[in-house]
Amino acid sequence: MAKITVPGFKFAGVACGIKKSKKKDLALIFSERPGVAAALFTTSRVKSPSVHVGAKRIKRGRLQAVVIVSGNANACTGRRGLADAEEMCRETARCLGIHRDLVFPSSTGIIGFPLPMEKVRSGIKDAVGQLSSGSFARAAEAMLTTDRFTKVAAASCALGGKKVTVTGMAKGAGMIAPNMATMLAYILTDAAVEPRCLKRILARAADETFNCITVDGDTSTNDTVLFLANGVAANSPVRSGKEEAALFESARKVMQDLALKLVQDGEGTTKLVEVRVEAARSVSQARKVAFSVANSKLVKTAFFGEDPNFGRIMAAIGYAGVPVNPDKIDVSFNGVRVVKQGVGLNSNGRRAARVLRRPSFSVKIHLSQGQASASVWTSDLSYEYVRINSAYRT
Amino acid sequence: MAKITVPGFKFAGVACGIKKSKKKDLALIFSERPGVAAALFTTSRVKSPSVHVGAKRIKRGRLQAVVIVSGNANACTGRRGLADAEEMCRETARCLGIHRDLVFPSSTGIIGFPLPMEKVRSGIKDAVGQLSSGSFARAAEAMLTTDRFTKVAAASCALGGKKVTVTGMAKGAGMIAPNMATMLAYILTDAAVEPRCLKRILARAADETFNCITVDGDTSTNDTVLFLANGVAANSPVRSGKEEAALFESARKVMQDLALKLVQDGEGTTKLVEVRVEAARSVSQARKVAFSVANSKLVKTAFFGEDPNFGRIMAAIGYAGVPVNPDKIDVSFNGVRVVKQGVGLNSNGRRAARVLRRPSFSVKIHLSQGQASASVWTSDLSYEYVRINSAYRT
Repeated sequence: MAKITVPGFKFAGVACGIKKSKKKDLALIFSERPGVAAALFTTSRVKSPSVHVGAKRIKRGRLQAVVIVSGNANACTGRRGLADAEEMCRETARCLGIHRDLVFPSSTGIIGFPLPMEKVRSGIKDAVGQLSSGSFARAAEAMLTTDRFTKVAAASCALGGKKVTVTGMAKGAGMIAPNMATMLAYILTDAAVEPRCLKRILARAADETFNCITVDGDTSTNDTVLFLANGVAANSPVRSGKEEAALFESARKVMQDLALKLVQDGEGTTKLVEVRVEAARSVSQARKVAFSVANSKLVKTAFFGEDPNFGRIMAAIGYAGVPVNPDKIDVSFNGVRVVKQGVGLNSNGRRAARVLRRPSFSVKIHLSQGQASASVWTSDLSYEYVRINSAYRT
Repeated sequence: MAKITVPGFKFAGVACGIKKSKKKDLALIFSERPGVAAALFTTSRVKSPSVHVGAKRIKRGRLQAVVIVSGNANACTGRRGLADAEEMCRETARCLGIHRDLVFPSSTGIIGFPLPMEKVRSGIKDAVGQLSSGSFARAAEAMLTTDRFTKVAAASCALGGKKVTVTGMAKGAGMIAPNMATMLAYILTDAAVEPRCLKRILARAADETFNCITVDGDTSTNDTVLFLANGVAANSPVRSGKEEAALFESARKVMQDLALKLVQDGEGTTKLVEVRVEAARSVSQARKVAFSVANSKLVKTAFFGEDPNFGRIMAAIGYAGVPVNPDKIDVSFNGVRVVKQGVGLNSNGRRAARVLRRPSFSVKIHLSQGQASASVWTSDLSYEYVRINSAYRT
């Protein structure tokens, strides 16, 4: 993959000793000028102080820097956690020579331990010294926790004859569940965008991408998706219509790319599975059924075992809380039908089993009730998931 | 444990070849006279034909026999499944010389394959020939699937000076989730009980026991709890008041005993954990928080890893959908506090870790919001769960 750059942005990723492993644990994103920003946060009632401070910052809608700590979530840390998140911003602002209110803080990692502020401060200083336009991937790497690989994406489009770039970096791995509850993701563009339009694009694109993935159904205390547009492309600010559609499409593409990478890198994942529900009465019913199947521990272990166990899929459809008619349901794996009008077709078992041996496949559920459809992306549930999560702290 | 008997009831458990393992796979419960019966069924929209036939049978409120097949759920089997469930009853009635409407059918096991009726018929014949009052445990054994042990319980109480017995047998293991969605359980008593009173006792006792356990959050297509009272004790039929309370208490005790055994025997379970939520605004809010924690894959893998990871507990409280105030939450393991007013107490980590090494412990979550409380029993999530469920069919 070619090196990702985005005009007007600089990046750094450093190791400051928060992680015992000595891996990179502090990322910095800096724009040469303040940009328009919007963000979505975890829906959890238990939020990290970093999220509280970030939510406060985003209200004014203007940002110039993002500082991200990995290895420590700064959650369940009370007042001290709030003070530490503020201090992260203050220190970053001081080193960059900008106003504190233009710095957005994030943190991810273990819950319940205060941030080692001495290390954080020295990391910020280092990061500011190392800022460069070519360090996109270093910053993306510095925000990882149990992730196996760096997740970045880029797209471009023309706005009023000017080419603009949309880029994104994300971290995920555990606690991947829908409703912005999931991960850290930063979408950066050099486009000029009106604040309201930026908000709309972010909300709609996140709904179609990050909100349609699930790894373990758990929702974290820290999750954040930030969209920052610095306007360096000098297009006339996008506000609606065709230009909004073009920018939306680029943002959606970047976010979908990151979302699928988040599932692929789900803890212990060996399969990337699309659960597609068709012919539902409404999109919300389609999604509800899709998530019920995509989150079922029994379905996910069957995926891991490469077992086309349609019984578990039918069971998960049954308890989704949607009034379905079981006698009208068809289920297929990549087109190989295993349930026809509610009855198992065991003669197709072998062909279906071959589909499940692939690293990625699609389960299609046809409800025969209406016109609406929805897709959700999920992973399998493996020994490795249990290993990672039973040994995470010890 | 002493041999369980209950006056007026006979039992049998036989192997008729439904399971490849040649283990017992057909259970029969027979009362010497028709009794009063009530039942609760899976809340799933996708129900086994056996459940449909059972629900039809229970409407008249009188039963004399229960025939249970294990190894095949008779689910996703369409019209043929309905005919097979009816045929199971007819054949049982014929061999016993009673009316078909007095026979209740159940099935559990793999979904999507038609019942091998030749084998079922021969099993029924065998079972009728082997009926005996001392075969309670054999019947309990014959309904098992991936269960590791037979689950039986008994209690007694005095009703109008007459001693009556309440007994129960259950199977579970996978798909253990709340709301009667769980397992097969048969509660049998020689007490005489008015039909309405029987229904009340069953509903209330199930709500406090079977509906408060979870293993994997999955809800099955076949689950059934049946309460059958044959009146052989010749007490004057229980209808309300003190006698109802006494019988309720015995039924609750039997059902709680079975419910905890279901969790202990959850697939791959190594820990039995009570998640208790106190000082909530309502019982329903307390339960919602307790289930959110009890069903979290991240919390359950932490239990398996014997890691007092309060961060994951706080995260699961946060996304429960209940308006909690994180800054007022306390969390403790068997009295060892790990979160005080929302802030982690890492100094107690070692003492808490010692608690988690026990096979059974309690997590207490204090919300400081009101007077209501609720307990939910759950298990850990182990390698063994993944092994069992990824290899179940293959």
